[in-house]
Amino acid sequence: MTKTQLIENIKSKGSYLCVGLDTDLEKIPVHLLSSHNKAFMFNKAIIDATLDHCIGYKINTAFYEAMGSYGWDVMKQTVEYIPETHFKIADAKRGDIGNTSSKYAKAFFEILDFDAITVAPYMGEDSIRPFLEYENKWTIVLGLTSNKGADDFEMQKTGGEYLFEKVIKTVSKWGSDKNTMFVAGATRPDQLSEIRKIIPNHFLLVPGVGFQGGSLAELSKHGLNNDIGLIVNVSRAIIYAGSEENFASEAGVIARQYHEEMKRLIY
Amino acid sequence: MTKTQLIENIKSKGSYLCVGLDTDLEKIPVHLLSSHNKAFMFNKAIIDATLDHCIGYKINTAFYEAMGSYGWDVMKQTVEYIPETHFKIADAKRGDIGNTSSKYAKAFFEILDFDAITVAPYMGEDSIRPFLEYENKWTIVLGLTSNKGADDFEMQKTGGEYLFEKVIKTVSKWGSDKNTMFVAGATRPDQLSEIRKIIPNHFLLVPGVGFQGGSLAELSKHGLNNDIGLIVNVSRAIIYAGSEENFASEAGVIARQYHEEMKRLIY
Repeated sequence: MTKTQLIENIKSKGSYLCVGLDTDLEKIPVHLLSSHNKAFMFNKAIIDATLDHCIGYKINTAFYEAMGSYGWDVMKQTVEYIPETHFKIADAKRGDIGNTSSKYAKAFFEILDFDAITVAPYMGEDSIRPFLEYENKWTIVLGLTSNKGADDFEMQKTGGEYLFEKVIKTVSKWGSDKNTMFVAGATRPDQLSEIRKIIPNHFLLVPGVGFQGGSLAELSKHGLNNDIGLIVNVSRAIIYAGSEENFASEAGVIARQYHEEMKRLIY
Repeated sequence: MTKTQLIENIKSKGSYLCVGLDTDLEKIPVHLLSSHNKAFMFNKAIIDATLDHCIGYKINTAFYEAMGSYGWDVMKQTVEYIPETHFKIADAKRGDIGNTSSKYAKAFFEILDFDAITVAPYMGEDSIRPFLEYENKWTIVLGLTSNKGADDFEMQKTGGEYLFEKVIKTVSKWGSDKNTMFVAGATRPDQLSEIRKIIPNHFLLVPGVGFQGGSLAELSKHGLNNDIGLIVNVSRAIIYAGSEENFASEAGVIARQYHEEMKRLIY
């Protein structure tokens, strides 16, 4: 998906919501457990119920890997089920030496037809370049994450700046705002303004709203740009809104609430 | 596997060689391509031919993910095929917020019965803790990697030290030398002495020998400790030593050469 298409989808819908499919067999409604293809049945129902309110889906690969090879089949089915109008993110946090990152890029951009993958920056340029080589695909690099552990290294000073600032400054030069985004957690909204000074035009993928406690209004105040420029992910607060047979419509209700709030924030 | 067992295996054999199964369907011998289960047939032959010369195998998950769900079946079959005497590393470079890292730990320590997994440190403590909670399992954290990109962030100064030194100092306190190792590349052997000053007792997983050009004698001079304390990985130089029907015995020849050199270095 191109940047122009992504912006058009967001602006026409008035939503910058991404639904995170952290699908956990220990948490899905009991009545689905007897299904042959329970994880996909869960995803399908959530997608059907939330499609009108979000502009993308984020698949957290850990949850699928915990199901073994079945999980990879579910990822494939899910990516194929999501319509082309919606942005598909593999939240995989990959990154390795060049020949290995090339294989990860193949796995997520070719074998699975994701639009984007999240990548960890620690190993530097040759670990990220292979992802950037794909046309109309996106590399979403960890900047400042939403968890407490971000203090340990990301928020350490290197030279006169935080490590995450150095990462964003450095990595943003390897690609462009048409193929690179950064993860910036909603739990530190004041830092979003600092990040916007470094990369005014890049999209940010913002986790940490919902279960992790980040405020949509706060992060939007600091993070929105003229293109909207934000993809805000909500996982657990939407997909586990209900645990009974009506779980999907409950998920739809919450997704609609985020959508309505987003419309108020951008119009 | 406990640290005592690992040391015993290494000392009794006189080898600290790990064979990296970077199994690539574009590189395995042509005569295997007609096999129904070609990737596993390749791994099985390599394992049979190298078992006497190494103390472990490292499975690089990227190469298996590039095969889709079949790759996950091959990983499972391969881990089950490797005898209990040998240390089994998932080279996965994972790491995410706590609830997600827990799922990765489940995937690699429970669904697949690996002894160890490589983990990226960027996201800090809560991204690493879930791996450390497993008894007799190992978390191998990226310290200083073997690639050129290590200059971009790992070799940047934070306070008075390099980022990789800060990572090693900090992370080594979260676990102990009985459940934590660090990746330290063979391509910067002088830095191994510095790392040994910080963690004299931890095992180091050392990539970068063979195709990447690191010297076994050099890295051993700087990295060995009283327990040996090194696991040196060689992937391409062993598994693709031959490309004909005798590829496995060619792999065995190269593995034997490393084994012989290691015996000379430690006895």
